[in-house]
Amino acid sequence: MRIVAFASNGRQSWGVLQDSVVHDLGAVTGLAGLGEALRSGRYEAALGAVGTAPTIELSQLQLDPPVVDPHKILCVGLNYADHIREMGRELPAKPVIFTRFPDTLVGSGEPLVAPRNSTRFDYEGEFAVVIGKGGRHVAAGDALDHVLGYTIMNDGSLRDYQRHTAQFTPGKNFPRSGALGPWIVTADEFGEVGPQRIRTSVNGVTVQDSRLEELVFGVADLIAYITEWTALEPGDVIATGTPGGVGDGREPALFLFPGDVVRIEIDGLGALTNPVAEEA
Amino acid sequence: MRIVAFASNGRQSWGVLQDSVVHDLGAVTGLAGLGEALRSGRYEAALGAVGTAPTIELSQLQLDPPVVDPHKILCVGLNYADHIREMGRELPAKPVIFTRFPDTLVGSGEPLVAPRNSTRFDYEGEFAVVIGKGGRHVAAGDALDHVLGYTIMNDGSLRDYQRHTAQFTPGKNFPRSGALGPWIVTADEFGEVGPQRIRTSVNGVTVQDSRLEELVFGVADLIAYITEWTALEPGDVIATGTPGGVGDGREPALFLFPGDVVRIEIDGLGALTNPVAEEA
Repeated sequence: MRIVAFASNGRQSWGVLQDSVVHDLGAVTGLAGLGEALRSGRYEAALGAVGTAPTIELSQLQLDPPVVDPHKILCVGLNYADHIREMGRELPAKPVIFTRFPDTLVGSGEPLVAPRNSTRFDYEGEFAVVIGKGGRHVAAGDALDHVLGYTIMNDGSLRDYQRHTAQFTPGKNFPRSGALGPWIVTADEFGEVGPQRIRTSVNGVTVQDSRLEELVFGVADLIAYITEWTALEPGDVIATGTPGGVGDGREPALFLFPGDVVRIEIDGLGALTNPVAEEA
Repeated sequence: MRIVAFASNGRQSWGVLQDSVVHDLGAVTGLAGLGEALRSGRYEAALGAVGTAPTIELSQLQLDPPVVDPHKILCVGLNYADHIREMGRELPAKPVIFTRFPDTLVGSGEPLVAPRNSTRFDYEGEFAVVIGKGGRHVAAGDALDHVLGYTIMNDGSLRDYQRHTAQFTPGKNFPRSGALGPWIVTADEFGEVGPQRIRTSVNGVTVQDSRLEELVFGVADLIAYITEWTALEPGDVIATGTPGGVGDGREPALFLFPGDVVRIEIDGLGALTNPVAEEA
């Protein structure tokens, strides 16, 4: 099953995507989004309304991030061996975790904003996990029971701000500098994480190309580690890190400017595509 | 003016504190908290209801963090010269910024939770800024217009988790490992930031003792820097960093365990006091 969030005539909603048709669950449940549905315990009941929900053609909608209001967005740095090498860093003994605020993310098709105060705007194609069941002190062996599904994140980064100090926070939190989507594919449909290819292109040229089996810390290990020190809630998002090939690691460097288009594709998830616009 | 948040008979509310009496603004406005009042533009109107609001004795209430639902909590590391020396670090050219989730903070009087999976639980007494007016690209000269007032934060830290990697996130985000309060003193009443003394004690023994004029990056500079890369919203919190004397920098080290009491006092703001309890 694929879950989308969208704006339609100024109303924020969400629903289930079947082929090219969206079943508008917001219209029949009064729940504005997936996060609210999950956190209020009404997600399963909402799914029961798919058959009676009004439908909209996907092509008529502007997609939002499939979770518009995650309470926690946790991002993993340096989690593919090839990316670690290109950034000149050591393989970490523990996952490197930083955070993004929800206002840093746009939906598929929406423009990323190239900020006026940096010229080092970089893409990072990532496999992202959406939590379905919250928890603390979750054992790795139980962790996959807490996953609702998977989606794609562009963990867009301003490399100069990221390196102002050792903390990544500034470079990872520019408004609308990243993207999430196009939708969530539920874990049952996605299957085992591993063989899927992850590819990023800029203006049609492939710049990242790896497979999910290259992840140093996998989904279960990340959930186990994160819940050692925070409680995950339904609707929270974990971005699992980016493969080699980021713009900052290339020779010459490849940064994003207005007019560019970034596309991240993961087998089984579709493609997250965003043009780049200048800051208003 | 002093603004508090509290729970009363299971209801979450907020109000204005005058002497020992709280004027319950939640009861008359339907606004559950300060953050909601500010973000909805109804804060000034709510203050107009102080005269007609029901009153409760402060001693009858359990205080919550004065903003219970900040969208962004930004914390500054290494911002007092004496603390930078004790941690063996260099004076930073830019503010060191990391984030905390709201569920890491309790109100004054509530127990801090010493986690079962770390024995390196440390206090950090800090002067905290509460944003009244949001903004992006705020010039330092205009920044103080965006401040609603000030409060105290215990930026409680698990030192082993803080050092798992270069990112501070895990060590700064254990549930209920920090505190905010006891209340907000509005900027007009607090006056110019500088001469006020900040002191932390553990079980009555003073462990941190400095003045706000020792801040490397002051309030205006922090707001200007932060809004270069994120939009501040009303109700957001900036913790400005901790002076020297943290437990991890002492010889021998001084960590917190169940039964300890941490008290942080700042001239003009009162005292934030929390016992330490074991994780349930």
